[in-house]
Amino acid sequence: MADDGRHGLAGLAVSLFTVEGDALVVGGVPVSQLAETYDTPLFVYDAAGLRRGYRALVEAVLGLAEVFYSIKANPNPAIVRVFVEEGAGLEIASAAEYEVARGAGARSDRILFAGPGKRADELRHVVDHGIGEIHIESFGEIEHLAAIGCALSATIPVAIRINPSAAAQGGAMRMGGKPSPFGFDEEEIDSVLAAIAAQPRLDLRGIHLFAGTQILDAEVLASQWGYGLQLAGRVARRLGRPLATIDLGGGLGIPYFAGETALDLGRLRERVGDLIALVRDEPLIRDARIMIEPGRFLAGPAGIYVARVLAVKASRGTRFLVTDGGMHHHLAASGNLGQVIKRDYPIVAATGLSRPIQRATLVGPLCTPLDTLARQAELPDLRPGELVAILQSGAYGLTASPVGFLSHPTPAELIVDGGEASLIRRRGTFAAPIALP
Amino acid sequence: MADDGRHGLAGLAVSLFTVEGDALVVGGVPVSQLAETYDTPLFVYDAAGLRRGYRALVEAVLGLAEVFYSIKANPNPAIVRVFVEEGAGLEIASAAEYEVARGAGARSDRILFAGPGKRADELRHVVDHGIGEIHIESFGEIEHLAAIGCALSATIPVAIRINPSAAAQGGAMRMGGKPSPFGFDEEEIDSVLAAIAAQPRLDLRGIHLFAGTQILDAEVLASQWGYGLQLAGRVARRLGRPLATIDLGGGLGIPYFAGETALDLGRLRERVGDLIALVRDEPLIRDARIMIEPGRFLAGPAGIYVARVLAVKASRGTRFLVTDGGMHHHLAASGNLGQVIKRDYPIVAATGLSRPIQRATLVGPLCTPLDTLARQAELPDLRPGELVAILQSGAYGLTASPVGFLSHPTPAELIVDGGEASLIRRRGTFAAPIALP
Repeated sequence: MADDGRHGLAGLAVSLFTVEGDALVVGGVPVSQLAETYDTPLFVYDAAGLRRGYRALVEAVLGLAEVFYSIKANPNPAIVRVFVEEGAGLEIASAAEYEVARGAGARSDRILFAGPGKRADELRHVVDHGIGEIHIESFGEIEHLAAIGCALSATIPVAIRINPSAAAQGGAMRMGGKPSPFGFDEEEIDSVLAAIAAQPRLDLRGIHLFAGTQILDAEVLASQWGYGLQLAGRVARRLGRPLATIDLGGGLGIPYFAGETALDLGRLRERVGDLIALVRDEPLIRDARIMIEPGRFLAGPAGIYVARVLAVKASRGTRFLVTDGGMHHHLAASGNLGQVIKRDYPIVAATGLSRPIQRATLVGPLCTPLDTLARQAELPDLRPGELVAILQSGAYGLTASPVGFLSHPTPAELIVDGGEASLIRRRGTFAAPIALP
Repeated sequence: MADDGRHGLAGLAVSLFTVEGDALVVGGVPVSQLAETYDTPLFVYDAAGLRRGYRALVEAVLGLAEVFYSIKANPNPAIVRVFVEEGAGLEIASAAEYEVARGAGARSDRILFAGPGKRADELRHVVDHGIGEIHIESFGEIEHLAAIGCALSATIPVAIRINPSAAAQGGAMRMGGKPSPFGFDEEEIDSVLAAIAAQPRLDLRGIHLFAGTQILDAEVLASQWGYGLQLAGRVARRLGRPLATIDLGGGLGIPYFAGETALDLGRLRERVGDLIALVRDEPLIRDARIMIEPGRFLAGPAGIYVARVLAVKASRGTRFLVTDGGMHHHLAASGNLGQVIKRDYPIVAATGLSRPIQRATLVGPLCTPLDTLARQAELPDLRPGELVAILQSGAYGLTASPVGFLSHPTPAELIVDGGEASLIRRRGTFAAPIALP
């Protein structure tokens, strides 16, 4: 294939998966065999790929930070369990995610609970069952948690989420300075510390920052982490004691589109060395547990979304492949999950890979032009019944999609490990149909 | 309130619902009472409002067309049943929607099945159980259906979806002329007719056109219908016999944003008179059953999405209301369902309506800036625990949203009829959580 950005991305299939003869293979199993057994559409995750990504990141931040998996990226219990078994902590954003975390074997003290709108019943639930840390995002939450602590006679480990001030920004910094519904403004930090100090049931352990989203540049990421560490030092000085924890947030990106390249973990490792030195120089954060909480970066690359071609048709010079997969299962790939400009996710054929390329626009089965998965993609000359795979689909796929739209069955999810596929969500069981009373 | 477009839309609450004292009332029941009984977030539909909208439209098109409800707009069986009991036919786009249609009491011959990517098992299912008409959208589908007809010894009633040619456009016409994954290009109609004629198991009854989407101008709508009728006449002449059916599609809009006004049914009625005359003048379509298939227009205005304020906070001069409702239940209201420009849905308080206005930005509980429901909305000075209602939420709400995103419980759905509320979908039952095997 030509060596442009687009094919560089399609080349991901070769690095993460393999091609044998005409067919795409995941973890030793041909995708066509999975489609035959489990029907399409289908999400397939490669356990070895999940582990490989986790281990590479752990190594890149070793000595600086621990890795907590952000469950929202992919809350399938089997995916979460892979990371827990690797030693990851977990970041959750709802009571149901707490249950997933515990069900996947996570110790309660290895779970962080964040989010701007936690319900009282969720807070009570996690306090009652044990939680590593709750990230407070409003004054109201301070009062809520204090009341829950009293009612349950519990001391609650908390951290505060902080929006950096504009004055602190510079260079490649992209976060902070603007009004935000998340956390507390850095400017009001003294009154936040006072409000928490007035609540004996709250144990303020540290701070939480949000580094941004979909960051592909190791320099940008490291400079945001560096800023977070400096901010942590300032907060500790105001607090007058060392911090126990510093959560530097997630935001580690993966390449989706032409021209994007993967985060350079080697380069990141170099900058992590500088950050370790920075931490050693600051007594009030020297002994803090520092955490990062990636989701997309860990789960995204090891997952694919497989769809079957239902019809091949031509209209006014454009060739269309109509598939049984679409925006109802993979909203982000259709360009409708926050994207301003619609660009195609990397997509490959999973069958007929050696056939000549014939550009085609790939659409899903829904009755809306929004249900477009790729525009003029370079795919082999596929026929009805053959398969395509959207890459980088392990994060923000099924659970970030409008699964009830047009009431098609929800796709199965599979994990492939050691050459064996396991069904980790049955087809049709995500959205339960209802009947009249 | 000031009389700008924004308040004109909020005024919808007054025309469709009522305000009693401080509180929003739906079908005689205060929203606060519903929230108390069924918890929040919550979708509430007003049965009387659904009927009123249906009857007004039936009257506007009387003598020209029958009204088929497009289930995809809101497939809750109780909503569908309201329209079926009013006499509506139904338009479906999946096998599950077929089951909803039958469960709601629709006769099989009053159901139309459309969609660019129908699976073979779906086609077999509806043929086996009876269907009014299947709208064919590709040559492959002609062969598929012919084979199913042979296998089941059934004659299958079909229509063909047509994309009008560019040459035929003019004035306010917005459809057709471009490459499309939907239906057949008008230019290839002769070969389509020949392919269907070669299949004795297929009974070609008519044509289907798509008029556009979210059309608020009665003139535009009527001129598109007029074009559809002329096209039907041309197809009938090529076919050499009268058409039995003409489906003019949906596309009837409802106002969401500042400056938009409701479709003028009085004006539409006037133009329908002209169209009736046009049909009478064309012998080959004079006896056709003409259908329109609105979804949004029928279901949208009678539904609201109710959320509770979890926290009130300020950040750098902006006041934020954090609610338990968000984009996971109402993607369209967050501006992430195909909107190019993010504008706010009409939103009102459901409690504290008489209190002074204080602008606030309304966000949901998810950890993403995408989860914003209104920007600087003029709402009363609400406190935690109080309620807001997003109007125009009866269509493309719950089932068009990423309900699994962050794993919060899915909202209940209620229908209010005759002063009584009925639970038509239990909280938490839309997306089933899963456990590890």
